Amino acid sequence: MGEFEIIASIRSLLGDPPGDVVIGPGDDCAVVRCGSSLLLLTDDAMVEDVHFTRALLDPRALGRRAASVAVSDIAAMGGTPRWLLASVGAPPGAGDALVELAAGLAERCAELGATLVGGNLTRSEALMISLSAAGTVDGEPLLRSTARPGDLVALTGPVGGAALGLELLMAGGGRDGAAASLARMWRDPPARVEAGQALLGIARAAIDVSDGLLQDLGHVMQASDVGARIELGNLPLPSGYDDLAPADEPLAPALAGGEDYELLVAIPRDRVENASCDLTVCGAFTEPDAGLVLVHEDGTEEKADPRGWDHFGGS
Amino acid sequence: MGEFEIIASIRSLLGDPPGDVVIGPGDDCAVVRCGSSLLLLTDDAMVEDVHFTRALLDPRALGRRAASVAVSDIAAMGGTPRWLLASVGAPPGAGDALVELAAGLAERCAELGATLVGGNLTRSEALMISLSAAGTVDGEPLLRSTARPGDLVALTGPVGGAALGLELLMAGGGRDGAAASLARMWRDPPARVEAGQALLGIARAAIDVSDGLLQDLGHVMQASDVGARIELGNLPLPSGYDDLAPADEPLAPALAGGEDYELLVAIPRDRVENASCDLTVCGAFTEPDAGLVLVHEDGTEEKADPRGWDHFGGS
Repeated sequence: MGEFEIIASIRSLLGDPPGDVVIGPGDDCAVVRCGSSLLLLTDDAMVEDVHFTRALLDPRALGRRAASVAVSDIAAMGGTPRWLLASVGAPPGAGDALVELAAGLAERCAELGATLVGGNLTRSEALMISLSAAGTVDGEPLLRSTARPGDLVALTGPVGGAALGLELLMAGGGRDGAAASLARMWRDPPARVEAGQALLGIARAAIDVSDGLLQDLGHVMQASDVGARIELGNLPLPSGYDDLAPADEPLAPALAGGEDYELLVAIPRDRVENASCDLTVCGAFTEPDAGLVLVHEDGTEEKADPRGWDHFGGS
Repeated sequence: MGEFEIIASIRSLLGDPPGDVVIGPGDDCAVVRCGSSLLLLTDDAMVEDVHFTRALLDPRALGRRAASVAVSDIAAMGGTPRWLLASVGAPPGAGDALVELAAGLAERCAELGATLVGGNLTRSEALMISLSAAGTVDGEPLLRSTARPGDLVALTGPVGGAALGLELLMAGGGRDGAAASLARMWRDPPARVEAGQALLGIARAAIDVSDGLLQDLGHVMQASDVGARIELGNLPLPSGYDDLAPADEPLAPALAGGEDYELLVAIPRDRVENASCDLTVCGAFTEPDAGLVLVHEDGTEEKADPRGWDHFGGS
C-alpha cells in the first residue's frame, strides 16, 4: 500500500466524527469546536536520513524548519498559530543538540506568533521530531474541498526553489549567490500566516505546497471534485531558477518538488484584486471531467496526473 | 546531560510564556486559554525497541496503549480528553500494520470519549508513534505544584503491576493466571479519566505514575516544594504481585517501575471521604526539608532519593 492508500483505509475505519469535530482527517488541519472558538489541530514529523541529514541541517535550523512546516498547515487554513508541542527522539548523548533544536523551535515560533508550550523527549536511533500545532481562526477556515470550476489557481509565492535548493545542497553546492538563496528556501521555508489570514473570506479554498505543486493541486481537485488547467508559462519561479534547473526537465522541481510551503489557493476571478497579499495567478479550476491539463508556453496542452513523492513507495 | 537536565536547559531558554499560556512546560499538560475554555495539550511518543517490541505488542495493542498513555496526562489534570493527532513513522511495507495501529488507536479513543482527528505518516527505520492529545477541563486543573505539607499521598489504583508484567513478558511468561493479568497492566494500561474528574476540586495536586512512583512523587515534591513520607506497607499492589515480585527487591517494580498510569494525588485528610473514586492512602506530604522518607512495615525509616528511569542515561 502507498501512503495515500493507507490513509484512505484509516479514514474509512474511523467513521463519522462526533459533532464537535467540524473537519476530521484529510485537510491541512483538523477543525474542532472548543467552546465558542474553532480550533485548528495539525502535526508533522521529520526523521533524520528521511527528511534531512545533519550535514544539511544543524539542530537549530532543524528546529526552525520543523516549526515552519507545522505552522504552515494552520496558515493554509487562514488560522493564527498559537501553541506547539514537540515530541523529540534522539540517541543518547544528544543533549546539546536537543537544546539547540529547542532554541531554533522557540525562535521560529516567536517569529510566527506562537509559543512552544511543552513536549517530550525519548530515546531513538535516528534524530526525529514530531511537532503538533494548535491555532485558532477568525472566521470560516479555508478548506481543500471548496474550490469551484471557474475559480482561479493562484500561488502566494514561487515554487520549485526548495526542491532545487535541496538538490544543489546534496550535490555539495548551494553556498553562493542564487544557489544559496534557493538552498535557504529549503532550509528555512516560510509559513504564510499573514497571507492565509488575508485570504480568509476572499479565497475559496487553500492548501500549502508541501508534497509538490501538482500533487497538492490534486488533493484540492479530489476534495473539491474539480479539474484544473495550469499555464506553465505563468508559474512563479524563484530568482536564479532558470539557470540552475535540471536541463532535461526544467519544471520538475516546480511541479513535483514540494516543500515550498507557499499557499495554493482557489479564488474567484473578481476577488483577486481584494487580496492584500502577493498572489500569482497560474491557472483555473475546471469541471471535474476535464482532469488536470498543463498548458505549455507554446499553447500545446498536455493531460497530466497529479503526482509527487509518496513516502510509502509510490512514484 | 540526562533527560531532566536537558528539559531544565530547554525550559530556561523558553522564558516566560505569553498571557494565553496558563501552564507552560513542566506539568502533565500545557494549559492554555482558548476563548472562555481552558485547553489541555500534551504529547507522548513510543519507539520500537525503546518502549516496546513487536513481539510484546502487536500494532493494534500498540495503538490502544499509545492512546491510553497520551490521554493519561489529561486525566492527571482532571480533564476531559477530546481530540488526538497521531504522528506515525514506519518502514516501507508496513501498510497493514499501520491500519491495525490506527484501528487500535481509534478503538481506545472511543472508549475514553475522545476522537482521532488527524495525523501524519512518515518513513522511518523503527516503528514509532507520537500522539498529541487535547482536552478541556471543567474547573481548575489539578497541577503538580500545589501539594501542601499535611496533604495525604493517595493512589487511584495499584502500582508495580505494569513493570512486573513487562518483566514477566520479556522472560517469556505472562501468559496465564495472575502473571497474565500483570502483563495486561503493561500492555493495556488504564487512563484514569473518571477518577481525575472526580478529584477536581477535591484533590490538591495530581500526577500520573508513568516514570515510577518515587520519581513521579519527586516531580510533585519538587514542583510543590514539599517532602513526603511513604508507608511501604500501605502501597496498593496488584493481585499476584507478592508471589511474582523479584525476591531480592520485591518493592522495586512498585516504587521505580512506572507505566502504571494510576494517579498519584495530594489530598487534604478531611476530603478523602468526598472522593467518589477508588483511593488508597499510602503516605503524607511533609515540610520540604524532610525530603523523602520510606517507612518500612517494621517501622524503620529510610531516607530515599526519588528515582526512576532516565531515558538519557541516568540511574
